[in-house]
Amino acid sequence: MVGGGQLARMTQPAAIALGVRLAVLTGRPDDAAAQVVPATTIADETSLDDLRAFAKQCDVVTFDHEQVPPSHLRALEAAGVVVRPGPQALLHAQDKGVMRARLKAAGIPCPRHRIVSDADAVAAFAAELTTAASPAQAGDRTGLTTAVVLKTTRGGYDGKGVWIARSESEAVEPFLANVPVLAEELVDFRRELAAVVARTPSGQAVAYPIVESVQQQGICVEVVAPAPGLPRQLALEAQQVALAIATELDVVGVLAVELFETRDSHLLVNELAMRPHNTAHWTIDGAVTSQFENHLRAVLDLPLGSPATVAPFTVMVNVFGGDQPDVYSAYRHCLTNDPDLKIHWYGKAVRPGRKVGHVTAVGDDVDDLRNRARNAAGYLQRNADE
Amino acid sequence: MVGGGQLARMTQPAAIALGVRLAVLTGRPDDAAAQVVPATTIADETSLDDLRAFAKQCDVVTFDHEQVPPSHLRALEAAGVVVRPGPQALLHAQDKGVMRARLKAAGIPCPRHRIVSDADAVAAFAAELTTAASPAQAGDRTGLTTAVVLKTTRGGYDGKGVWIARSESEAVEPFLANVPVLAEELVDFRRELAAVVARTPSGQAVAYPIVESVQQQGICVEVVAPAPGLPRQLALEAQQVALAIATELDVVGVLAVELFETRDSHLLVNELAMRPHNTAHWTIDGAVTSQFENHLRAVLDLPLGSPATVAPFTVMVNVFGGDQPDVYSAYRHCLTNDPDLKIHWYGKAVRPGRKVGHVTAVGDDVDDLRNRARNAAGYLQRNADE
Repeated sequence: MVGGGQLARMTQPAAIALGVRLAVLTGRPDDAAAQVVPATTIADETSLDDLRAFAKQCDVVTFDHEQVPPSHLRALEAAGVVVRPGPQALLHAQDKGVMRARLKAAGIPCPRHRIVSDADAVAAFAAELTTAASPAQAGDRTGLTTAVVLKTTRGGYDGKGVWIARSESEAVEPFLANVPVLAEELVDFRRELAAVVARTPSGQAVAYPIVESVQQQGICVEVVAPAPGLPRQLALEAQQVALAIATELDVVGVLAVELFETRDSHLLVNELAMRPHNTAHWTIDGAVTSQFENHLRAVLDLPLGSPATVAPFTVMVNVFGGDQPDVYSAYRHCLTNDPDLKIHWYGKAVRPGRKVGHVTAVGDDVDDLRNRARNAAGYLQRNADE
Repeated sequence: MVGGGQLARMTQPAAIALGVRLAVLTGRPDDAAAQVVPATTIADETSLDDLRAFAKQCDVVTFDHEQVPPSHLRALEAAGVVVRPGPQALLHAQDKGVMRARLKAAGIPCPRHRIVSDADAVAAFAAELTTAASPAQAGDRTGLTTAVVLKTTRGGYDGKGVWIARSESEAVEPFLANVPVLAEELVDFRRELAAVVARTPSGQAVAYPIVESVQQQGICVEVVAPAPGLPRQLALEAQQVALAIATELDVVGVLAVELFETRDSHLLVNELAMRPHNTAHWTIDGAVTSQFENHLRAVLDLPLGSPATVAPFTVMVNVFGGDQPDVYSAYRHCLTNDPDLKIHWYGKAVRPGRKVGHVTAVGDDVDDLRNRARNAAGYLQRNADE
């Protein structure tokens, strides 16, 4: 696995149970996965030479992030390394422009979008979006006719590389990085959902239940599985969209599809990730087979495990660092307070706003689970108040 | 953790989630835990110097077996090392004579027993056992009046160091090892049960549900949790016995109490283990908190997690090596055949009769679970027949 963050770290327990020898390539010896995986290589994940050397010990190379340059992946594959997901699939999780074009061509429902080259083009796109509703006011240079979402096509994550522009002056910054910019309509959504599937090279696939993903500033903070009150037809449609994308792009491993549930009960694809994903961390405690186990099974071309839930509901809440680096007493308190809660700690130094762990509550009463998980995560984050 | 077998290996996933840095001392770099724990020291677990050096990096020292000499443990403790369970507690899992004497004094129900010095003493003990039923026949040197169980007080495990003697000639071998020998009545039991508890230094304790343990030649082959059809009163009594022993001996960590359920529905203590135990491997998949997590929490003096089950029944079946060292195709078959089954592989070379893994099935219908787990384990073991 290239990348040694918490995703690689959480893959290790699955590898241990399966009897799979996990090797990790990462930049620093104190990275989350390096602490728990003996076969860790400390090297540069963006260096083709380092990737080549690392791959020599591996039957299959996979990833815990999307940051490896596509050209390196193609070079590895050309040299006979088994790369899963393959570079052609992974490109759609690396480049939002490529992704949007491909999904649109495949008839997958997406927000209206366009590659734009400058603020004027953003204004024109906004004007088009509003044509039907109210004609653009020519000459108004301060406001766009409607808010537009701007995204750098490459390199963004966790809310970085995404802007909401309501005026032309707000539509300037995205172009400074010299990366193509994608403009999208600002979707009026009821909530965000995620559809996570796993797929093998031979095309076997499993779909986890559709979850509700609560985001703040573009960062996932809470996941409820399955999404409460989601009509069965919409849940099926979301699974089918994810399975269709996995097949269309020939994804191998876990594919996470972030979706908008619109106020008029339609689905629109927001983002793709081709690796274990935050919206499926709940599967460690709440599903028969975790996403990490199914990712390993998939990339190793082993039969997939059941994605069924073990209880009616699971709620996962991310833990972000607070002001206080020492959280031990807060940690003890959480264990004391709720013996049914599952804590997952990533072994990272606690810094304000940094994702340092997550907690999961599994059971019948979704409100109770949500309260318990939020309380624990909030306590761990606000430990400075003690 | 001293010892690098499958128990230490299965402790690593719990340590990863808790954010605990697990270090292991073991003899060989290919030991089950050495493969998955970066902080592994390869040294001699029976050398006091090696133990001392290893302990320097640890906040707490614990064990995956009972083979460390008691004198070494006392020396470590005297040198200020925190050893959990402590030497005085652990001694009762290391010496069956000490254990029997202490449990008897504490009023814990045990089989009738006696330390014996030779075959004549075994015959006398047998005669006493049968006094009530039918007087011993003086001068009969070929048969004992009743079968007697003989155990070396130290060093036995998995059926080794245990004999059933039906004649005086069968009562000779146990004395050859020059270790004190314990004679016990052969209990007419309905089945074997196990009561597993975890206890912290401050005395907090949790009790897992009582399980049925199926043994063949003194080796656990199958565990059903909870024990089907066990009367509630007997289950409570078994938990109380285990909790009483944990308190009486000041055990810290997991304590497993193997019990006989007699045909007249009484409980008798058979063996003790003070470490994660084969009869609680089911807790990884079938309980809110695994025995491995609770062992870590206990020895680190953290609050314990819930021992509640996640489903009505869990069946665990051990996988023993067969004639064929390469089990990959059998492994694939098992994953294909039963996507709900959980496989746990220990990373050990497959040799006939060697415990190389276990499988777990979790659900509602105990007969179905037993069939599925037995089928998978049997298939993995008999893979030579393919």
